[in-house]
Amino acid sequence: MPTLQEAMAHVGRDVDRVLETVLLPGTGPEGRLADAMRYATLGGGKRLRPFLVAASADLFDVPTEQSRRIGAAVELVHSYSLVHDDLPCMDDDDLRRGRPTVHRQFDEATAVLAGDALLTLAFDLLAAPATSPSADVRVELMRALSHAAGAHGMVGGQAIDLAAEATPLDLDGITRLQALKTGALIGFCCEAGAIAGHAERERRHALKAYAHDLGLAFQIADDLLDLEGTVEETGKAVRKDDAAGKATFVRIMGVDKARQQAAFLAAQAKDHLQVFGARADLLRDLAEFAINRRS
Amino acid sequence: MPTLQEAMAHVGRDVDRVLETVLLPGTGPEGRLADAMRYATLGGGKRLRPFLVAASADLFDVPTEQSRRIGAAVELVHSYSLVHDDLPCMDDDDLRRGRPTVHRQFDEATAVLAGDALLTLAFDLLAAPATSPSADVRVELMRALSHAAGAHGMVGGQAIDLAAEATPLDLDGITRLQALKTGALIGFCCEAGAIAGHAERERRHALKAYAHDLGLAFQIADDLLDLEGTVEETGKAVRKDDAAGKATFVRIMGVDKARQQAAFLAAQAKDHLQVFGARADLLRDLAEFAINRRS
Repeated sequence: MPTLQEAMAHVGRDVDRVLETVLLPGTGPEGRLADAMRYATLGGGKRLRPFLVAASADLFDVPTEQSRRIGAAVELVHSYSLVHDDLPCMDDDDLRRGRPTVHRQFDEATAVLAGDALLTLAFDLLAAPATSPSADVRVELMRALSHAAGAHGMVGGQAIDLAAEATPLDLDGITRLQALKTGALIGFCCEAGAIAGHAERERRHALKAYAHDLGLAFQIADDLLDLEGTVEETGKAVRKDDAAGKATFVRIMGVDKARQQAAFLAAQAKDHLQVFGARADLLRDLAEFAINRRS
Repeated sequence: MPTLQEAMAHVGRDVDRVLETVLLPGTGPEGRLADAMRYATLGGGKRLRPFLVAASADLFDVPTEQSRRIGAAVELVHSYSLVHDDLPCMDDDDLRRGRPTVHRQFDEATAVLAGDALLTLAFDLLAAPATSPSADVRVELMRALSHAAGAHGMVGGQAIDLAAEATPLDLDGITRLQALKTGALIGFCCEAGAIAGHAERERRHALKAYAHDLGLAFQIADDLLDLEGTVEETGKAVRKDDAAGKATFVRIMGVDKARQQAAFLAAQAKDHLQVFGARADLLRDLAEFAINRRS
């Protein structure tokens, strides 16, 4: 059995290969758009979401080619959300994964369009027969993705984040914000494995519950990293949330309590995986990684 | 048989009803996002694209509930593209359909997110079983929409438009720009009727050819309106293209030649409809309307 690091690296390489086939270098007058899409997506990143898809899909023996395509689609959605989130009118970030953000490397208009095109491409990727021989599975994947990514999922979370600049959130509010902003897409990743694998309801729910706890644990760890990490380690600006006076888990709970809560959530996440036995060990390791990483 | 105006108004009301069911007024901290999505989509507009879907679908006796949902999905994509296109970093427009643009009425960040969420919602709408009992049809609709809307369609056209600010286009370049920027989505509308109606290849191609010519005729008429219309008639700023020194059909061909070319394209568009006989009369009327409208 590979270690978590080996397994993540392996999935990352596979997914990058899929992404290379759908993100061709630019030609013609629209070449700058294609280049910005590549820059936004192929610039590293942990590929955490594709790994979640892969590890969940493996529980149901979904063919690798299929789970990698689903993983690539999720990564396109994740990348688009970062590009738009970094825009001057949003978080106004200059640095992402240790490199200039898309609107700094290209320009704002190209960043808006690149995000739009990446989101659209995610659905294109899922719609193609290579993603699953079953049209029913493909439709269900696209439906679940649109729920997770849209106004009642990720984008809704970003809207709450905007509103929170004027009206700071309490703990319930932050929990809901994060469940939408990052949790919904993480939930989709685990659900996607179950959808592609025609999983029965109990197992699908177990994976969703795991994803829910994992997502929150991951976010609390992110808040701690923002406070304690360095630019070198994280590849992005740190202590921005703190400087902006944003309500975060850490700010409301304090560092010690937040660290305890992250550990509790990681343990609870692992607990949901009992039904899968030892086959889910990589997902268990991931829950540990989520709270112990340095970037 | 209803007149074109009656038929368009009828489809418009139907589609607005569908849109009302998926664009609920905002509640909670993310309410501003929901309100911006409604504002962007329910603020009038000709509903030309949903009408094209409806008229094409009627040729194959597609149930009305289905064609209206497809039309609503296209209108969501069209609305999202206008919201992003109007942003300060893109066309920087203050007025749309006679009202402040979304980023003027709300704010830039909300406009970016509203556009993102509208695009996502379009796929959500198509994915639901009510759009077609056949998962194959739904997948094919989503695939065709992602092609038409993405980097090789509408967004690609917008990217060419950006590039043209630095390097003015020739006639071939403008034709390609418009075929992508507005033509691809108009093509999808006609194709969608054929997909939902399980049309044979010949009829599907005839509709695509019609859409291609219609789209270009429509765009040339738009250029003429930009030059000759008033703010009151068009509900948006006029002579912006001219002031910006942008290459347009009219600028390259001159007013008389452009008007002739629009008439030629409209006639050619109608020609493609022969296979449908009198059933396609509304689509023929629409080709006339495209070049004779005042807004």
